[in-house]
Amino acid sequence: MKVTVVGLGLIGGSIARDLRKNGLTSEIIGVDQNEAHGDLAVRLGIVDKVSTLEAALSESNVCILSIPVNAVTKVLPLILDQVKDSTIVIDTGSTKAAICKAVSHHKNRSQFVAAHPIAGTENSGPEAALNGLFENKTMIICEKQKSSDHALHVADQIFRALKVRTIFMEPVEHDKHVAYVSHLSHVSSFLLGQTVMDIEKDERNIFALAGSGFASTVRLAKSSPDMWAPIFEQNVEYLSQALLEYIMHLQRFHYHLMKKDTAEVHRIMSQANDIRRVLSGIELNEQKNNKVESLIED
Amino acid sequence: MKVTVVGLGLIGGSIARDLRKNGLTSEIIGVDQNEAHGDLAVRLGIVDKVSTLEAALSESNVCILSIPVNAVTKVLPLILDQVKDSTIVIDTGSTKAAICKAVSHHKNRSQFVAAHPIAGTENSGPEAALNGLFENKTMIICEKQKSSDHALHVADQIFRALKVRTIFMEPVEHDKHVAYVSHLSHVSSFLLGQTVMDIEKDERNIFALAGSGFASTVRLAKSSPDMWAPIFEQNVEYLSQALLEYIMHLQRFHYHLMKKDTAEVHRIMSQANDIRRVLSGIELNEQKNNKVESLIED
Repeated sequence: MKVTVVGLGLIGGSIARDLRKNGLTSEIIGVDQNEAHGDLAVRLGIVDKVSTLEAALSESNVCILSIPVNAVTKVLPLILDQVKDSTIVIDTGSTKAAICKAVSHHKNRSQFVAAHPIAGTENSGPEAALNGLFENKTMIICEKQKSSDHALHVADQIFRALKVRTIFMEPVEHDKHVAYVSHLSHVSSFLLGQTVMDIEKDERNIFALAGSGFASTVRLAKSSPDMWAPIFEQNVEYLSQALLEYIMHLQRFHYHLMKKDTAEVHRIMSQANDIRRVLSGIELNEQKNNKVESLIED
Repeated sequence: MKVTVVGLGLIGGSIARDLRKNGLTSEIIGVDQNEAHGDLAVRLGIVDKVSTLEAALSESNVCILSIPVNAVTKVLPLILDQVKDSTIVIDTGSTKAAICKAVSHHKNRSQFVAAHPIAGTENSGPEAALNGLFENKTMIICEKQKSSDHALHVADQIFRALKVRTIFMEPVEHDKHVAYVSHLSHVSSFLLGQTVMDIEKDERNIFALAGSGFASTVRLAKSSPDMWAPIFEQNVEYLSQALLEYIMHLQRFHYHLMKKDTAEVHRIMSQANDIRRVLSGIELNEQKNNKVESLIED
């Protein structure tokens, strides 16, 4: 198959790398509004060539859309306007409700598969693209019933090449749960980085006193604002709920700290320790899911 | 030299491992109020034997104190009461003001070196002890002028074996800066873990939707409450300031989110991205500090 990847960053570039490695594709065409990223993706061997969106679509069977979510809602309808009957389109956006809504009544909706891979790093651009980024990770598919059997069949081949396991959720449920589990930790990390740089005026102290714990906690603060600002905007309702809960927990902790109620502080931390069990569940989950589940029911 | 290590957990155990590997010690004696930890430390080869504090002190040249900071303020004066003239005592507590104050007028204060290694993991107990945990990390020494030349000379031998670089700070300055750079990130992580487990009632969603970013951000929430509750209690003044700043930043971010002021949300995140430069400074710092600086001025 011939695949067009729109957006040659961390996610689009990593998908291209895996598809090429798997031998599933005869050609991968890159589309990126940033010309330097397009050139770099060719030089790094991520795509075979770069092209305009129109030209790329005219010769592709698959179009993968890995651009900021505010751009997806604009570009996806235009892509569905002009795709050939046999071409399928997959997005990889971190929000799903606005994207699904933007094409819910489109005549070619059935050629689209709404997807979100739970994978990534804090880096961005073609150089951030990695082989095997998605292996044993989760790919969430929304509104599966609105995609045609053909679209699901092709998407299934691609997801097998990425070695993800697929799960299904409704768009609003998806947005709610990723707000809690993913978007909130990005906000917490961005603002922790900001706070420490703000309060600790002498940067040399950060150099000298920060251990691996600090580095781990602020890692996500390196993430791309171009990707994340639109995600937060589209998911503001659930993110806001999650953020208020977080602030409430921090304030309550602060109250117990100030009261010198060390027993309660200890109790809260002991309860939070349960995250160890939850996280080892995650690790376990990744290890045991070596088999790739099918999108298509037998 | 014969070394007693009081507290056979992550820090005490890791120090014992490095000292043994370096060949600096003829014998390492472990002291731990948790009998199972003592037995395990012997079985893991971390210490040669376990003993009571009194018996261990009577035959040691060095005593390293790696127990919760509220225990340090209680036990350290008792240790200084009974040590031989030639024995030196080093603590490794994450706060320094209360500890230094607890012995500031002790007749044997000069036999004590107040130290804090900026190193660790989220794990605890003898099994968490690692070889080389301190290599190229920072050891902060407080009130160096109150330690005797002999104490500093012996401490210097130990710190060289650990391959740390030493820096000097006053206790209150130390507590202030570690509140900003280390203690706040622990609080942020503990409460993030707590919030997500609280708001996301269905644990399977956390399993399915959490990526490596979430795992990284809540890693410190696995840390030991026995170690951290007393640290927070002793450092409440500066930790409270840092925590209020963090809450203020989160609230301001929430305000801009709710106003749908995506440009401002983007600007805040772009500014937070500067943590990338600060963190690569940290990494650079660790790499280039292969030489071990001396505690003793030539």
